[in-house]
Amino acid sequence: MDAVTYELIKKSTETDARLGILHTPHGDIETPVFMPVGTQASVKTMTPEELKEIGAKIILSNTYHLYIRPGERIIEKAGGLHKFMHWDRAILTDSGGYQVFSLSNLRDIKEEGVTFKSHLDGSKHFFTPEKAVQIQNSLGADIIMCFDECLPYPCDKDYASLALKRTIRWAKRCKDTHKNIEKQSLFGIIQGGMYKDLRLQSVNEMTDMDFPGYSIGGLSIGEPKKIMYEVLDWITPVMPQNKPRYLMGVGSPDCLIEGAIRGIDMFDCVLPTRIARNGTVFTSHGKLVVRNAPYAEDFRPLDEECDCYACRNYSRAYIRHLFKANEILAARLATYHNIYFLVNLMKKIRKSIKGGTLLKLRDEFYLKYGYNKEDDE
Amino acid sequence: MDAVTYELIKKSTETDARLGILHTPHGDIETPVFMPVGTQASVKTMTPEELKEIGAKIILSNTYHLYIRPGERIIEKAGGLHKFMHWDRAILTDSGGYQVFSLSNLRDIKEEGVTFKSHLDGSKHFFTPEKAVQIQNSLGADIIMCFDECLPYPCDKDYASLALKRTIRWAKRCKDTHKNIEKQSLFGIIQGGMYKDLRLQSVNEMTDMDFPGYSIGGLSIGEPKKIMYEVLDWITPVMPQNKPRYLMGVGSPDCLIEGAIRGIDMFDCVLPTRIARNGTVFTSHGKLVVRNAPYAEDFRPLDEECDCYACRNYSRAYIRHLFKANEILAARLATYHNIYFLVNLMKKIRKSIKGGTLLKLRDEFYLKYGYNKEDDE
Repeated sequence: MDAVTYELIKKSTETDARLGILHTPHGDIETPVFMPVGTQASVKTMTPEELKEIGAKIILSNTYHLYIRPGERIIEKAGGLHKFMHWDRAILTDSGGYQVFSLSNLRDIKEEGVTFKSHLDGSKHFFTPEKAVQIQNSLGADIIMCFDECLPYPCDKDYASLALKRTIRWAKRCKDTHKNIEKQSLFGIIQGGMYKDLRLQSVNEMTDMDFPGYSIGGLSIGEPKKIMYEVLDWITPVMPQNKPRYLMGVGSPDCLIEGAIRGIDMFDCVLPTRIARNGTVFTSHGKLVVRNAPYAEDFRPLDEECDCYACRNYSRAYIRHLFKANEILAARLATYHNIYFLVNLMKKIRKSIKGGTLLKLRDEFYLKYGYNKEDDE
Repeated sequence: MDAVTYELIKKSTETDARLGILHTPHGDIETPVFMPVGTQASVKTMTPEELKEIGAKIILSNTYHLYIRPGERIIEKAGGLHKFMHWDRAILTDSGGYQVFSLSNLRDIKEEGVTFKSHLDGSKHFFTPEKAVQIQNSLGADIIMCFDECLPYPCDKDYASLALKRTIRWAKRCKDTHKNIEKQSLFGIIQGGMYKDLRLQSVNEMTDMDFPGYSIGGLSIGEPKKIMYEVLDWITPVMPQNKPRYLMGVGSPDCLIEGAIRGIDMFDCVLPTRIARNGTVFTSHGKLVVRNAPYAEDFRPLDEECDCYACRNYSRAYIRHLFKANEILAARLATYHNIYFLVNLMKKIRKSIKGGTLLKLRDEFYLKYGYNKEDDE
């Protein structure tokens, strides 16, 4: 039996949205779910206890980063990633594919694998599908990812097709390598650029391999949002109903709603944590740059409709002061709030799927949040 | 009645140590006590809840810094410093004197006050004793300090005498200015450099003014520790028994013990928080630079004898990784541990005063901690 299984609770009639439960070795997770990102075995600024308090059930960590530093051997020696970072809920690791293609400046792609240089010290490394899985086996996350080739945007069709076929061959090698199926589930990744036939081909060939879950890669990489939504509209209807669908790297509030509407079950993104550290927070009425001057004497909470720890106890004026004074607590409070905001949004999304009011939620959100189409692109 | 009063619980017979309770508008505080420093209205990296969990009963904040940024008017508008920073236990603010003399590069000392340039933007400011008290009245801390002239080390006797007399005249002006005595208590500051007669003169003239408490300034400014201890040996025996004595800027573990032995009731220092952010932690066996390579695969806690949150849940290997990876959680965990270590040391000191075993505690500490006399100088 697979370590991770998906239980479909309810299929929306008004949209393609699904309500489900992801059963993992480290607990059950109601879906659709947002996964905060802990790139280097830490969700930036946060403790695991705070993430639990917020309601996070699963976090993502990055294989590439942990391989580079501290190295998967140390984490394995520590008893695995859960124990190393003191997190006893579920973890998902990516395969390193995305980072190899986005962070490393010198890389050489061959059928066997990819040679790349570390973004830290320029040292040379060679990743293969086998190695990506072995590293993830050492890390021990509940959900692990196939090693894939990530395309730039835009990308011509010939190359997209070539890369897609290689990604499928690599997925087979990943599956053959992965031995730890009772503790960790290996997900396949749907690629194919912004080309409908390639995306459909990818869905077909990946689902033929019968992975316990599928992620959708190669989106949110600079393309307009409407193109991302179009790609989702092509592929989620033909993806298996009994497997979870994970849209990689997506996390702006509007995209979470639009993704859920299109049948996505899992999301991850550094957006809430990254913008928090720059002094930007989500609010019910749109984004707010709390470090800006207008908030110097604004004694209201970050978001007047939020009941998170930061909003219950601190004013915009105080948090702005902390940002101006370079106090670490600034980043902590903004991060706490932003993750809370998204986790809470996912709760509202699940409630709306249950009640059949997801489209209403979307309309209200756009009206109130003051959505700008180009805002997060 | 003074806002803050000192209740002597027990006078040690083996040393000059005292066990007491400081009654403040924001709670009672067992003394001797260590006060973590929240320079800019935040104890760096920490939330108030964490400080409470650790057992901190009073923190210090800096008038100079808050005057410069965000400005005392904003804090007053917010309802005072307690409310601004969400801390409902006691606060002590210094007068800004030390910072004016140590941080500001261009200053001009006159009888009326001191002109100095902001360390942030070079803007010119003028502090008088009256202004220092008015700012502290706006901030609203439980304990506030007289504006004093801080000497460098070494300093010739003629100047030390001149500065001391001015500090005494300034103290009178501070006392005359301070109107808020039922909510805030103004402490006098003993100066006089490293000269016995000047220190004794300072004690006499300050105690004649009958402040509700006295701090000892001008120590821990670069002089050898034995000189600091000698100064304390001169003055604490002649200080009033019914008033608290606060040794400013002192916070290394050995100095806390030696200070308590000499009858000090209150301490503050940035040491635990500052070294934490650089990757250094206190342990029962001396300081440990956890960011160093030997800890890469050390899965023991920071201090095997510590039961703080950081030591219960994380390894040296993990915390080292966080430091190497520039993760904010590194500074959080090290800071939490270091403050806990000192708060816990003060508990042991109080217990030893109660049991008449403080000298034994000192001997055991030096033996185990591996004290190096020059270590913290």
